[in-house]
Amino acid sequence: MLPKLNVVPFVNVDNMMKLVLAIGVERFLTELAAFVEADFKRWELFDKTPRVASHSAEGVIELMPTSDGEVYGFKYVNGHPKNTRDGRQTVTAFGVLADVSTGYPVLLTEMTILTALRTAATSAVAAKYLAPKGARTMALIGNGAQSEFQALAFKALLGVDRLRLYDIDRSASLKCVRNLSNFGFDIEICGSPEEAVVGAEIVTTVTADKQYATILTDNMVGAGIHINAVGGDCPGKTELHADILRRSDIFVEYPPQTRIEGEIQQLAPDHPVTELWRVMTGSAEGRRDAGQITLFDSVGFAIEDFSALRYVREQVARTGLFDELDLLADPDEPRDLFGMLLRAKAAQTAA
Amino acid sequence: MLPKLNVVPFVNVDNMMKLVLAIGVERFLTELAAFVEADFKRWELFDKTPRVASHSAEGVIELMPTSDGEVYGFKYVNGHPKNTRDGRQTVTAFGVLADVSTGYPVLLTEMTILTALRTAATSAVAAKYLAPKGARTMALIGNGAQSEFQALAFKALLGVDRLRLYDIDRSASLKCVRNLSNFGFDIEICGSPEEAVVGAEIVTTVTADKQYATILTDNMVGAGIHINAVGGDCPGKTELHADILRRSDIFVEYPPQTRIEGEIQQLAPDHPVTELWRVMTGSAEGRRDAGQITLFDSVGFAIEDFSALRYVREQVARTGLFDELDLLADPDEPRDLFGMLLRAKAAQTAA
Repeated sequence: MLPKLNVVPFVNVDNMMKLVLAIGVERFLTELAAFVEADFKRWELFDKTPRVASHSAEGVIELMPTSDGEVYGFKYVNGHPKNTRDGRQTVTAFGVLADVSTGYPVLLTEMTILTALRTAATSAVAAKYLAPKGARTMALIGNGAQSEFQALAFKALLGVDRLRLYDIDRSASLKCVRNLSNFGFDIEICGSPEEAVVGAEIVTTVTADKQYATILTDNMVGAGIHINAVGGDCPGKTELHADILRRSDIFVEYPPQTRIEGEIQQLAPDHPVTELWRVMTGSAEGRRDAGQITLFDSVGFAIEDFSALRYVREQVARTGLFDELDLLADPDEPRDLFGMLLRAKAAQTAA
Repeated sequence: MLPKLNVVPFVNVDNMMKLVLAIGVERFLTELAAFVEADFKRWELFDKTPRVASHSAEGVIELMPTSDGEVYGFKYVNGHPKNTRDGRQTVTAFGVLADVSTGYPVLLTEMTILTALRTAATSAVAAKYLAPKGARTMALIGNGAQSEFQALAFKALLGVDRLRLYDIDRSASLKCVRNLSNFGFDIEICGSPEEAVVGAEIVTTVTADKQYATILTDNMVGAGIHINAVGGDCPGKTELHADILRRSDIFVEYPPQTRIEGEIQQLAPDHPVTELWRVMTGSAEGRRDAGQITLFDSVGFAIEDFSALRYVREQVARTGLFDELDLLADPDEPRDLFGMLLRAKAAQTAA
């Protein structure tokens, strides 16, 4: 049978949830992390560009394209911190994969849930290379939509099973405890960021809606810890005091984007940073010693979405959890697009 | 009733054809042209960037975003000239409108057919300002997928009713004649571009798959004509001899993009050009005299797609010709994205 050239497989929110539940969240995160790691290891062959952002007073809308030469992918994603006031998500997203040789889309999928999963998977992959060996305790500062995904990714990939939660809104921490109650964590809700970091080998910051907020101050960060700085990620939005950055070895995804959006926007534009992919391929050192402070200044890069889209494409092909979308005009004769309209009209008249 | 926050209206190919046929092609082109013209007249307030292109040996995939501060739009579009060999379209496209204040998409639509319509509508709007008054004869060089749309837009907006067709492949011209047979044109198929331009007041070039091809040479272009150069539109792809450009007054959409992609890539980077929107607002002159050669070096700009998306959004809201797509995750409590997964699991278990 000839392929239906007009059809693009589409994964809606319902099917994405079914897929995640069928695979299991922790296994999904582990397998997705393997895709992310594989793509970081072939980093150099990707077409890379800082995301294309359209800023407004209320937030930002971004397009994040990349390609490995055979497959092209992009994500549409917004960031609107005030959205939660009227029941909307701060971040929503959808994404597309396309065949480079024809330009035809081969997958359209929701990416709100998928972005939460890929962000957490990427954090955990980075920590595999950067966190102290055997780390089991993580401070989780900011207990919003991303927090449970972070916790589960660190459990699945590193064996982190003790969480110290802090959020400016205690009900967010309670929600996080409730959602994680059946996943085997030992969880403590803390009254301040200072309290949360006590005894933690890994500190994950994942807050939003802060103008140059200082979630962590310098005196809170002891020797040897790994900081996973996930929140912020916008010009004018940071979470860490600049003094922490100066004491840390900083690892980033794509420097041209991180220097604009990440914690390091507070530093000089030539402040030394290490690209994470170099640590994975062995061309740069990750954690050297037990006293070193490592910092993953994560802003989220298009290649991580590409990995997530690749993974989902394989999984939906296997499970059939997709719909067929009539997205592409497909006239019988490709140069006869107008004739397709005329034939549709003739069919209407005949009916 | 509360709006369903997860749902995005989606216009598939079938509904786009129904919409165009319900409105009528010529009326659709006329109304769409009015939207394009209205947006060109408020050009300065748009967020503008050259399209984001990913080139490969086989073609290009592009993202074309823009925003007027209230609404954001982008188009995904590919250009793969060899696609027709295995029955695919050279150009396919889809597009999205989103609300700037929330970042939520409000429309997803096929744009393969819509791009053909907006390209033709834009050409005709430009010609309204640039072509000789009372022009009725157009040479149409290149009789592929875009040709009939160009013919009908010029008929609807300018009253052009005599066509002189030329294509390197005569069967394309025959297809064009067949498709236009009931629209009131006087049509002649010509054996060469030289023959096609004889007596034409407007020359439209709309070919593809040519590396620095010269569809029009200098001696073919007489005084007073308007050239509507639609094809080419890629670094390395042009249709007109540089000497024609030097004799013409050149009008463009967005100079930073046209200098890369348009006919004027053959000229010095500071060769004077006039932005079309300035002619529409009266801040620059269009056609001054009967002997002048005017050239619209059209490459297609994001604002034209934005106009088309705006128009379609209004029309599908009126006609109901759309489906509801479950594209956006919508947890009951926005920070509880993970809890949405858990509740889906509980619902599965209960069922």
